[in-house]
Order: sequence, then structure tokens, then C-alpha cells
Amino acid sequence: MTPSSAVLAIDIGGTKFAAAIVAPDGEIHRAGRIATPPTADADELWHTLSSLIDHICEGESVSGVGIGCGGPMTWPGGEVSPLNMAGWRRFPLRAQLAVRFPGVPVRIHNDAICVAVAEHWRGAGKGTRNMLGMVVSTGVGGGLILGDRVIDGGTGNAGHIGHVIVEPEGPACGCGGRGCLEAVARGPAVAAWALDHGWRPVTPEIHDDAYREYGSATARRLAADALIGDEIALAAMARAGHALGLAIASATHLCDLDLVTIGGGVSQAGAPLFGPLEVTLREHARMDFSRRLHVVPAALGQDAGLVGAAALVLAGDRYWSPGDGPWSSGDGSPGE
Amino acid sequence: MTPSSAVLAIDIGGTKFAAAIVAPDGEIHRAGRIATPPTADADELWHTLSSLIDHICEGESVSGVGIGCGGPMTWPGGEVSPLNMAGWRRFPLRAQLAVRFPGVPVRIHNDAICVAVAEHWRGAGKGTRNMLGMVVSTGVGGGLILGDRVIDGGTGNAGHIGHVIVEPEGPACGCGGRGCLEAVARGPAVAAWALDHGWRPVTPEIHDDAYREYGSATARRLAADALIGDEIALAAMARAGHALGLAIASATHLCDLDLVTIGGGVSQAGAPLFGPLEVTLREHARMDFSRRLHVVPAALGQDAGLVGAAALVLAGDRYWSPGDGPWSSGDGSPGE
Repeated sequence: MTPSSAVLAIDIGGTKFAAAIVAPDGEIHRAGRIATPPTADADELWHTLSSLIDHICEGESVSGVGIGCGGPMTWPGGEVSPLNMAGWRRFPLRAQLAVRFPGVPVRIHNDAICVAVAEHWRGAGKGTRNMLGMVVSTGVGGGLILGDRVIDGGTGNAGHIGHVIVEPEGPACGCGGRGCLEAVARGPAVAAWALDHGWRPVTPEIHDDAYREYGSATARRLAADALIGDEIALAAMARAGHALGLAIASATHLCDLDLVTIGGGVSQAGAPLFGPLEVTLREHARMDFSRRLHVVPAALGQDAGLVGAAALVLAGDRYWSPGDGPWSSGDGSPGE
Repeated sequence: MTPSSAVLAIDIGGTKFAAAIVAPDGEIHRAGRIATPPTADADELWHTLSSLIDHICEGESVSGVGIGCGGPMTWPGGEVSPLNMAGWRRFPLRAQLAVRFPGVPVRIHNDAICVAVAEHWRGAGKGTRNMLGMVVSTGVGGGLILGDRVIDGGTGNAGHIGHVIVEPEGPACGCGGRGCLEAVARGPAVAAWALDHGWRPVTPEIHDDAYREYGSATARRLAADALIGDEIALAAMARAGHALGLAIASATHLCDLDLVTIGGGVSQAGAPLFGPLEVTLREHARMDFSRRLHVVPAALGQDAGLVGAAALVLAGDRYWSPGDGPWSSGDGSPGE
């Protein structure tokens, strides 16, 4: 049994639920994950999550609940409509969990913000005060830490680096706009560009559920082919890296960052992605304050979302700003 | 005589010094300005500023000093090297003023950040918690307020919206990069584009020192010609508006803003600039959280820099974050 000040962390992805008991030092003591059937309705999804939670919490007493969930959502109220989980539309996830865990804080944030928080709290960003934590996989997301505190923005949606514009006349984006970083650099877009330009995969097909979550399997094969020198694969990764460099240059000019961390499946392409990214970034970020920026791979891997969700409670002074409200006590009464 | 809790505000522009006594409510009680000779050396500049201060402070007792100054500078230490004031290079402006005003806080920030602070404290952004305050004139600058507090970034340089990239292969920028908003939308660039495309000014030449500071006189004539329907002038303003719309869309995706305020000479072009800006912004900002953004003209005019500089002291809880240091006491000793 873990200390009673441990919290329950929940990570709601597009295709899976994950949950864990997280100790005050950020260490994961017991974790589990379960795939979600794509056709599940709201009740089925809730019961699937409840069962996972019952299993993880058996014999544990938790002092709070932190949730990372794909957007959009109302925030901090926590009615969620995760893009890739059609069964939940304005589902009152936070309120439901507050009923299940009365008397303790139950707090939710965007999953990409949780990843950034985790990298800042316990990962590659530890010790910096101003960073952007990015995830480049099937989408491109992020979270901002400025002045040592998470930045929420007006509706909890700050950090959407994936929709910084890198090609004003570029490809249509899922957001309804055009030329967003995500439209160019998300795994499926990079792979589609390569296929369009004649790429024929060399690396064998990969079967692993993790790839569904952290970038498409095709993008993984593309990354592998780039590493063994396939020219079209290299060109595709260079194009994505260029787009990332432009968006990061814009971001550091606007926010005067110390550090950018990049995780997610596409980021594991390594030098074929990070090399062109650096070239473009250094071409565009020329003032003293922007030249000092470092871009590094994320340190925490797939557990980052859980660690960051836990930090909403365990390090709320830096990562939770809404003040008193039902998210503080877990039962709808103000304060704790 | 104003209340003893009033502060001295100083605004260091490219071509002038301004100073004022500002009351706790943000009202300016006594103000003056003086042009700076472009060839003045460090001592001449300091004596010119000292004389202005002596005049403004005569018979007044001030409880602090707030300074807005063009960058670059070390921050919060306040050694300044304003781009358009060659006589000051790493001039210890804050320290010199701390000697002149012992025992009171002496605080400095980028002039564009001071303008944003002023609009948030007393201008068009009053009551919002997340805003970008922009100045579009001979340069394009800005400041960010997020979560009701000014954002400094790692070196006091957050808010450089002018260097968000809007045309990756676009014109060279003074910063050393390429395709920055400033390279496209600063007054002289807009006017140069129009002249290159055959514009022949219709509106008579304007002679007013204020135009030197807040956008070039030529850009003012261009704006006036656009308002009377000159087609090339309209196209030039539309191009600038388009660039502004792109940068603002990127900024609100990254920071989840409630409001953008735009001041400075070029912004006074009105509909020929703001119309195309809105069209581009709405094309690219399509998610619920970014559609809610409002873009409005700044409310405060030329005194904004002074009001914002005063707020560094008068409302330091929101607009001054570095904590204790020589900027708190004015005499190099820690704390107050």
C-alpha cells in the first residue's frame, strides 16, 4: 500500500484509458490500462473506466484525483467531448469522479497540458521556469509553463502549438483552418505526404497498440525508413522538422522560452526530424533571447500523461490555478 | 501637489523621452516630453533625461519609479541598449535612476510590455484576464497578460508578436530572420510595398513629431489614402491586415486569449486594416476557444507607455514578478 497522500491519476486517450496510483514524489506505484471499444456509448465508457479505477484503487486511500483528457472540454468544470471518443459528448467526467471520490480534490486538464506539466515537474524540463512541452503523434499538442506556472488561457486551451500557422496557404487542418503545424507535421500527414511522393515502406509492418496512441504505425515505419536512409522518408521528415522549427520560433518569440520538449511517436524519428527542425529554428530565431532556446526530446514516455494529471493535485500551487471550487473538494461544496 | 503615493513614470522611445507623475488611480498629473538628438552620447542622453525628470518632479515626492524602454535590455537589471538610440549601449538606466531616487522601488520593462500593461490596467483590456496588447508603428511590438498577470518570459522578452512568422519565405526582417510579422506589417514596410506597387501619395505631407514615434509619416499618408479609396493603398493595408490576422490566430491558439488590443500609428488606418485582419483571423481561428477572441483598437493613445510604466510600481502584484531585489528598494539593498 502506498502513502495515503498518494493520488489517483487518470489519462483518457483516443483509444485507451489509463489509471495509476501516484506517490507525492511523482512515482507511479500501480498502473493499468484498457483499450476502449470505438463504438462504446457513454455508459459503456464510464463502466469501463469505473472498473479500471476499482482495480487500481483496491486497498488504496487516495487524497485526490487528477485527470488528463483529450479535448475539447469545458474547463475547469470538466465536461468532456474527446475528439476520438464519440461516445462522450459533454460527458460530466469530473463531476462523476467527484461523486465516486467525495471530499477530495478532483481536477482535470487537457491531456497535452498534463504531458507538459509532467515534463516540467519530473522530466526534461525540471528546473526551467519557461517551457513548451509538445507531443507530436497522431495530432500535435502542447502545454505552456511560464514563470514556473502552468498557463491555462481563458478557457483552459492554452498550449495549442499544433495550430500555430506555418504555411498560410498550406493544407486544410482538422480544426477548420489551414496551414496549421498539425496539418503538416502530424504522423498521418507526414506519412501521407511520403506515400504521395512515391515512398514504398521498407521496414516491416509494426503491430503494437501503443502506436495507435502515439503516432500511426505508418509514421513509425516512415521514421524507421528515414533512419536507414530512404530519401523520400528523409524528405518527409525534413518537411515536418521545418514546420516544427517555424512554429517553435514563433512560440519562443511570443513567450521567451527557456526550453521546448518534444515527445510522441513522430518525435522518435530522431536526427532526420530534429536536424531540419534545428536548421529552420536557428534561421528564424536570431535575437539573443530566442537564440538561447534549447529543444530536447521529452524524458518521460507514455506515463507522462499520468504523472502530469497527478501533479494537478500533488503540485497544485504551480499546476492548478482556478482557486476554490468543486474541483477542490470533490463534492461540489466550495473550498476544502 | 499630487498624493505622496504617486510615482514617476518614464517612457524612453526611439526619438524622445517622456516623463510624468502618475497617481495611484493611473491618472497623469504632470507630464513632459523632450526630443532626443539622434547623435547624443550616453552622458548627453542621461543629462537630457535628468533635466526632464527634475522639471517633472519639482515639488513632488514620489513613492517609486516605473520605466518603459525600447529593447534590447537586461532584465530586470535594466541595462538598456535601445535600438534607435545609439548613444546608450548597456547603459545602466535602472541603476542610475535608483541612485537618483534612493529608498523606493525603481522598475523597468520593455516599452511594448508597458503599453500592454496600461491597456490591461486602465484601457481597452480592463477586466479581461488573458490579452495581447500590440503596437503597430515603425515596429510591431506587444505584451502578454495571462491569468491576470504580465508574462515576462525567461529574460523579460515575452510578447514579441512582431516576430511571429507569417510568411516563411517572406521578406528579411531586422531581427535577422525572415517573414516575421514586423517585416510585413511595420509602417515603413507597408509604405514601401505600396510605393513599389505604384502608389503616388494623394494626401498632403504631414509634419508632426508624434508620427516619427508612432509610425512613419509616409505610412500615415498611406492610411489616409486608403480611407479615401486609393486602390494600391487599400491593397497595402489589406496585406498588412492579413499578416496581422495570421499572427493573431497563431497567438490565440498558443495562449487562448480573450482579447487583442492594437495601437500605434498604423492601427489608425481603421477599416482598411481591421477588415482584412478579421477576415484572415476568422479563416484560421476556427475552434470554439479561438473564435471567441475579440480584436479591438487600443484605448489609451500616446500616454499608454507612461501609464504602464507607472503600473509596474502601482500595481506590482499583477505587473511585476521578479520578487525582491534592488528594483524593490531602489538602493541596491534587498527588499523594501
